[in-house]
Amino acid sequence: MEKTKHLPAKLKGLGEDTLLGRIEDIAARTAIRGSGVRLGVGDDASLFRGSNGFEQILTCDWFLEGTHFLRDQHPPDAVGWKCLARALSDVAAMGGIPRCFLLGLALPASHTGEWLDEFLRGLRRAAKRFGCVLAGGDTTRRTGILINVTVVGEVRTGRAILRSGARASDVLFVSGHLGEAELGLEIIRKSKRRVESRDPILRKHLYPEPRLALGRWLAEKRLASAMMDLSDGLSTDLPRLCAASEVGALVEAEKLPTVRVRKGGPSLDEDSLRLALHGGDDYELLFTVPRAKLRRIPRSVGGIPITAIGKITKERRLLLLEKSGREVLLPNRGWDPFRQKR
Amino acid sequence: MEKTKHLPAKLKGLGEDTLLGRIEDIAARTAIRGSGVRLGVGDDASLFRGSNGFEQILTCDWFLEGTHFLRDQHPPDAVGWKCLARALSDVAAMGGIPRCFLLGLALPASHTGEWLDEFLRGLRRAAKRFGCVLAGGDTTRRTGILINVTVVGEVRTGRAILRSGARASDVLFVSGHLGEAELGLEIIRKSKRRVESRDPILRKHLYPEPRLALGRWLAEKRLASAMMDLSDGLSTDLPRLCAASEVGALVEAEKLPTVRVRKGGPSLDEDSLRLALHGGDDYELLFTVPRAKLRRIPRSVGGIPITAIGKITKERRLLLLEKSGREVLLPNRGWDPFRQKR
Repeated sequence: MEKTKHLPAKLKGLGEDTLLGRIEDIAARTAIRGSGVRLGVGDDASLFRGSNGFEQILTCDWFLEGTHFLRDQHPPDAVGWKCLARALSDVAAMGGIPRCFLLGLALPASHTGEWLDEFLRGLRRAAKRFGCVLAGGDTTRRTGILINVTVVGEVRTGRAILRSGARASDVLFVSGHLGEAELGLEIIRKSKRRVESRDPILRKHLYPEPRLALGRWLAEKRLASAMMDLSDGLSTDLPRLCAASEVGALVEAEKLPTVRVRKGGPSLDEDSLRLALHGGDDYELLFTVPRAKLRRIPRSVGGIPITAIGKITKERRLLLLEKSGREVLLPNRGWDPFRQKR
Repeated sequence: MEKTKHLPAKLKGLGEDTLLGRIEDIAARTAIRGSGVRLGVGDDASLFRGSNGFEQILTCDWFLEGTHFLRDQHPPDAVGWKCLARALSDVAAMGGIPRCFLLGLALPASHTGEWLDEFLRGLRRAAKRFGCVLAGGDTTRRTGILINVTVVGEVRTGRAILRSGARASDVLFVSGHLGEAELGLEIIRKSKRRVESRDPILRKHLYPEPRLALGRWLAEKRLASAMMDLSDGLSTDLPRLCAASEVGALVEAEKLPTVRVRKGGPSLDEDSLRLALHGGDDYELLFTVPRAKLRRIPRSVGGIPITAIGKITKERRLLLLEKSGREVLLPNRGWDPFRQKR
């Protein structure tokens, strides 16, 4: 205690307790009633009270400098927003409601000032926007910036939509557009300095919106037989859904909701298709609907377009129906940290 | 899918899905009934069903190469054991029962073989020993080994023991002995190769035992007014308990349950006291008991000694009563990653 008081001014504010105090401040400012959080930051652990008739959804996600974001190019508030948004996307994928989160944060001492302020601002915006309270965490010092976010959500008992429920002849849907985030990343990787966070073409990469309302609607109406979120790209994630459901799928290239690629590339069409099939970080929902329920699926939910892109097949292969009418095996070329460097 | 099938043999088993498969295997082998886990590794998130009449305890902890362990000196199975054990210590500190955990693991490709096997073996041993099921996680590739563990525990509603309940004249207790883990660390830091995990003087540093039974007993019997675990050293942690309770404390040096330091040092007595006051990683419980309940505190619980080391004071200072009878301010010299390098 005494020692801390006499620290030279330039070291003040760097103690772990002080850092926790600033995070605690965010916790207080994001607090909402009904979150279930009984005791937040500041004790050995947090206390949460689950709602009657609900199950708890648990998920944790890495967000690491160099792997998931670039220190010099990504705006700190986008780092704060996205580390929470992508973990919330897993809650959306189960059809759940976010409740609270824990923040694991490792930082260099050089980043406990302005960078941390902006990071916390982005994090707080996302926490408020998606109704998810900061309930606790752990901080430490580190050369690289390391983030790990654990989210607790809830879903009415028995209503969670799993990856394993798809059946042959179910129709395959995606929300939004595919490939937009990857396009944003490609632009950022080419840039040498911090990008402008208001550039509309970068928005989906910097500030993804987990499809919480859509996921919850599908779960409450019991419309989807299987669901997951697209984080590593359709060609990597669809095989996971198919494996869990012990089925195959046929994707129609012509139906994919692709993004428009800026002029100047060698082949616009080919590029949009590549981005839609293999681009990561979209955080759109991929889900299957039994044919008997098809007419209950609207063209959009809450302004987010919903597109049928193919169907589930009994034969356990992944096929792509090209625009030419030819069927080819869909190659798995999405994001896998252990297979390729991004 | 096709692409993975044709990977050269030496790359096989390095894909994220394969790595997750091996972790899933651990999950299946640690599964226990009554854990509340309804859906484990393999979907977008896990599902947990809270017990009636209980609150959920949430805590997350970093365990990072270079900061919390040394890649070349620490046995991988001790890394696996300890990353879970120290997170469980926070559950013990609330008086709770462990239920399940999420594992965030980032590894270099070079460590997905033997190192990972041994790591998972230690993790599985701890999971079984403390009755905590692996419910999910996130893996990625990274040059350094990064671990983040989130534990979900439960405590009967209203029975959690917080840091904030200590009142003036309460008696201050600790479990076990203080400073043993720090002594182990000092030996390991001097060693140039991987240490022998069976060395008894290293056991407490390598394989700490969270005091779950004691914590739970104190909560169920409503004996402790405040409690926390000692992770950063008494001189750093006690101020946190006092700050939360808005009180001070007087610690009696003579009463501290110190460890015997091996002969050869300059001053054995001084060294034991330094280790007990400032040594980190003990994972013992620090708790306060109102005087009216004192006679119900036994000398040990489940073989773990319990020692009264001082008392809570109204005046908000931390004092140490030295063996000479002199009272001095207790300096805060434990572990704070933002104040000093360990």
